[in-house]
Amino acid sequence: MDDFELSCRGLYRAMTIREKYMRLAYQRFPRTASQYLRDIEGESFKPEDQVQPVFTSPPKNGEDPFDTADLPKNLGYVARMKDGLIYVYNDGAAADKHQPKDLPCPDYNTFIDDMNFLIALIAQGPTKTYTHRRLKFLMSKFNVHEMLNEMEEMKELKMNPHRDFYNCRKVDTHIHAAACMNQKHLLRFIKKSYRVDADRVVHNLKGKEVTMKELFESLHLHPYDLTVDSLDVHAGRQTFQRFDKFNAKYNPVGASELRDLYLKTENHIGGEYFATIIKEVASDLEDAKYQYAEPRLSIYGCNPSEWIKLSSWFNKNRVFSPNLKWMIQVPRIYDIFKARNFVPHFGKMLENIFLPVFQATIDPQSNPELSIFLKHVTGFDSVDDESKHSGHMFSTKSPKPEEWDIAKNPSYTYYIYYMYANIAVLNQLRRQRGMNTFTFRPHCGEAGAVTHLLAAFMTADNISHGLNLKKSPVLQYLYFLAQIPIAMSPLSNNSLFLEYAKNPLLEFHKKGLVVSLSTDDPMQFHYTKEPLMEEYAIAAQVFKLSTCDMCEISRSSVIQSALSHEEKVHFLGQDYLKEGPEGNDIRKTNVAQIRMAYRYETLCYELNLIKEGLKTE
Amino acid sequence: MDDFELSCRGLYRAMTIREKYMRLAYQRFPRTASQYLRDIEGESFKPEDQVQPVFTSPPKNGEDPFDTADLPKNLGYVARMKDGLIYVYNDGAAADKHQPKDLPCPDYNTFIDDMNFLIALIAQGPTKTYTHRRLKFLMSKFNVHEMLNEMEEMKELKMNPHRDFYNCRKVDTHIHAAACMNQKHLLRFIKKSYRVDADRVVHNLKGKEVTMKELFESLHLHPYDLTVDSLDVHAGRQTFQRFDKFNAKYNPVGASELRDLYLKTENHIGGEYFATIIKEVASDLEDAKYQYAEPRLSIYGCNPSEWIKLSSWFNKNRVFSPNLKWMIQVPRIYDIFKARNFVPHFGKMLENIFLPVFQATIDPQSNPELSIFLKHVTGFDSVDDESKHSGHMFSTKSPKPEEWDIAKNPSYTYYIYYMYANIAVLNQLRRQRGMNTFTFRPHCGEAGAVTHLLAAFMTADNISHGLNLKKSPVLQYLYFLAQIPIAMSPLSNNSLFLEYAKNPLLEFHKKGLVVSLSTDDPMQFHYTKEPLMEEYAIAAQVFKLSTCDMCEISRSSVIQSALSHEEKVHFLGQDYLKEGPEGNDIRKTNVAQIRMAYRYETLCYELNLIKEGLKTE
Repeated sequence: MDDFELSCRGLYRAMTIREKYMRLAYQRFPRTASQYLRDIEGESFKPEDQVQPVFTSPPKNGEDPFDTADLPKNLGYVARMKDGLIYVYNDGAAADKHQPKDLPCPDYNTFIDDMNFLIALIAQGPTKTYTHRRLKFLMSKFNVHEMLNEMEEMKELKMNPHRDFYNCRKVDTHIHAAACMNQKHLLRFIKKSYRVDADRVVHNLKGKEVTMKELFESLHLHPYDLTVDSLDVHAGRQTFQRFDKFNAKYNPVGASELRDLYLKTENHIGGEYFATIIKEVASDLEDAKYQYAEPRLSIYGCNPSEWIKLSSWFNKNRVFSPNLKWMIQVPRIYDIFKARNFVPHFGKMLENIFLPVFQATIDPQSNPELSIFLKHVTGFDSVDDESKHSGHMFSTKSPKPEEWDIAKNPSYTYYIYYMYANIAVLNQLRRQRGMNTFTFRPHCGEAGAVTHLLAAFMTADNISHGLNLKKSPVLQYLYFLAQIPIAMSPLSNNSLFLEYAKNPLLEFHKKGLVVSLSTDDPMQFHYTKEPLMEEYAIAAQVFKLSTCDMCEISRSSVIQSALSHEEKVHFLGQDYLKEGPEGNDIRKTNVAQIRMAYRYETLCYELNLIKEGLKTE
Repeated sequence: MDDFELSCRGLYRAMTIREKYMRLAYQRFPRTASQYLRDIEGESFKPEDQVQPVFTSPPKNGEDPFDTADLPKNLGYVARMKDGLIYVYNDGAAADKHQPKDLPCPDYNTFIDDMNFLIALIAQGPTKTYTHRRLKFLMSKFNVHEMLNEMEEMKELKMNPHRDFYNCRKVDTHIHAAACMNQKHLLRFIKKSYRVDADRVVHNLKGKEVTMKELFESLHLHPYDLTVDSLDVHAGRQTFQRFDKFNAKYNPVGASELRDLYLKTENHIGGEYFATIIKEVASDLEDAKYQYAEPRLSIYGCNPSEWIKLSSWFNKNRVFSPNLKWMIQVPRIYDIFKARNFVPHFGKMLENIFLPVFQATIDPQSNPELSIFLKHVTGFDSVDDESKHSGHMFSTKSPKPEEWDIAKNPSYTYYIYYMYANIAVLNQLRRQRGMNTFTFRPHCGEAGAVTHLLAAFMTADNISHGLNLKKSPVLQYLYFLAQIPIAMSPLSNNSLFLEYAKNPLLEFHKKGLVVSLSTDDPMQFHYTKEPLMEEYAIAAQVFKLSTCDMCEISRSSVIQSALSHEEKVHFLGQDYLKEGPEGNDIRKTNVAQIRMAYRYETLCYELNLIKEGLKTE
């Protein structure tokens, strides 16, 4: 077998691995790639094999997004965790005998095998050479395309009536709710709240209820004097390569009391201020009309009641906006909880995260608030500092989650596998019930080992960051072939991990990886009233993006996002699920057909090369 | 004489040259530098020798900025041009005999001598070495200062109540009125105007009056379909190093008819739309409260009636805002006018530019509209593509302006000298009458020869761009010593002359040159609704500026600007004219005193070195 064939064989198998895990979890795998894979196998492509996640459509006119009238009935099933995975049983008896219902779940050993295969592949010399060369070629090819067709693309856009970069839809695909306002907004809100609520009891200080006035007095400050400097929530030179310092920036004036009061869903005032701030951000997005955002709210897995509290906050404060699509982020901080004795083992953490969701899926009426909230939740994120090394290696010998009772944190891959596996089963159950499904969209490749990107390649619908794809040509090429969307936040990276000019966004975009722009944390990183526009403007200026580039990135952000099918049809066109130029409606996206054709032909060419490579056998 | 002494001697003389020409024209020269110069000369510094330009204060409550009641009486003087310079005479008889009034004007031969001295100095080996080393030292010194004091500076700012970057005043020190709105604003305005005024006669098309509807029909487009793409006023990759293409971007949809209708003061509708757009921009600035701008309007010198028309537009449309300070830009395009036979010689162009202003100064009531307008004009700018080489060398042998009747354009320096000389005389006359004076603030060092920066060093109160100071250590050091403000526009440069990351703004700022940030042309360069904030945000992100850096730049922009003494006292503090920390009111500027002290000590150290160098003689 020559090097070319060896590489193609490996890449082919890698793609089938991703295809399998995507399908299992109702996540996306591109049709074109599937067609080539079937071609290689000598089989015919069946469109019905394609799966899509299901996201809740926005309420119709007059419909109340918090209406609990139509919640489905109780199925009476029982859900229990075993080996870190929630199983669904017909009843308690079946559960006791572990006779679960037929909801396919990933096979643990196969997953480890697949993973080990991929670990070997990304280190395999010939494949590294092959993919490196292909990527280099893709770069040069785009440069040539640009030189030849830039003016033609611009001409297409100029001929396109009534649509330009400003009124094509863009989604902030990665933003944390607790930092979704900018620093000036937070400052204004604090001052305003003090003017109105100074005498309101807002906090419990060492067992004593205190008013806002007393709270600020205990901090020796008066909101009138507060400035963005003293608020001190903005990242600066001090936070570069210091994720710990960055995390501390979430505390206004360095006081965790103020974080509790203003940026938490759970506090003495039921998270009212936080809800108000978010609704103000949403209202700005609604006014801007063409901007959407996907904020993350935290579930820690510390306590099974977290979901109840969070959904209660969501419903009571009616935190809904058609321009916001919600996600749940799970911090990878088992070690901290374990050290404080909050959880006995890692399995309990997983149970706290997933069991309430399974139960609400089986019997929605038992917890209407949670069921309503879950309708508006679109996916899970996995978050924390990736540069922390765990020292553990995920393998067949790894302890099961219920056995993981040591102080050490499990590895990134271990976390990812168990989140993915539970989401996969959950999605099947929800799909059966006609409910919306969840996508898995972890932070990945912001720092740390390239194996993180490998784990996400197997499990994630799409990822945030992806910077470290720079370090592995094989993975970078695979992300290209599988067209895995990457939500990039160069301003965030600039403050934390990588200088702006060195950000690979432009390189990835040129090579044909699917990138979108996102803000991550406007409170920490942005200066203006429109953080997403600031993100686009800076990228456009520094990287000299053309209008077509910017509109392509905007389009990718909608594709990547959890906007519902209905909204995507409205924003991208009837055929948005088709790939290549026929899936593009320039009147809605303002992306030139020349560009779309270039992207499609280029992708097909690369997929075809693999097919050719395998023919020689 | 050793190299050190030689350099110091040269630098000393250079500084005295600038001091002389600044004083002559009522422009600024720093007190500290004057004190050192007097020290060197063994003389005592007289504060009364210091001069300051005079800018009109904003109208008091209820005062009408267009009120003509208090215009001064006619002095009955006669103004006439001779050798390119306007002289003022007691009467016609004195004029015929050329017996001008005693208004000191620069001596032509001395000016050339001074210029030749400076030309030699910036090429002098030892001085180049000396200044290069000093600049390198200034850079390293600032880096050390930053490492040692960054946290202390931040602490000072955090302790400073109620003032942060957002509410300290900043002035957009360099912006062209015809491009002061962003592209989206212009687009919206065009659409709105069509909805309201479709049937209004707005244009004269080949001798026929046409309605807006007919005008758009003749261009084969409908405003409803118009987008920022088809509007095509934004600079892109195509404009890099192509000033010609950039200039064409002033025409919306490439149609000069639309430029006439929307972006000109003189057209079929009396510049009504342009005035409305500017007033909308002003209203946004007033809402933002802390932002000011200094837009440039054009006087071409093609025709003596230009001033009358422009001031009539200004008064009729009541284009006034406390947040706007007006400037006059004069394009250096004699060659074009001469080719079209609009002017017989260069002297006529100068006469058209300056004579009406002299006349309105002598007899304000003869043209009340112009006199009111001049009250709000704060200075002159000289504009055009600096990279065009003229081939002419300004010297004692240069033809006088009235003899300059060849097709070729005079050199940059020739233009600068005659503009400066006329402004100097004009300011003396206006000062005598208690009127506001004008500063000379040319575009300089954006491209072309370093001699442009040399000419501005002799004549300009402050400049725009200054990029080419990179190329001459001697001039760069002189700009530092004389603390000449430089309005920099890195986003503009990024689209035209220099990539963002290579912009010397950060380097200049660190070395202690006085830099401000300005937008130049929001229509062509910016994406967001707040172009000046976009400019600051991008600089902050790319250059990783600290809050103290940003507030120092904001403070410099107020210093550089033509805000009146009254406003500067209000925005910078009572003692803003003092140099060093005692001139800084941190409560208003949010600039740390540690920073101010560092800057002042550093400047004094460098000035003192020169003094020491001269002692050895």
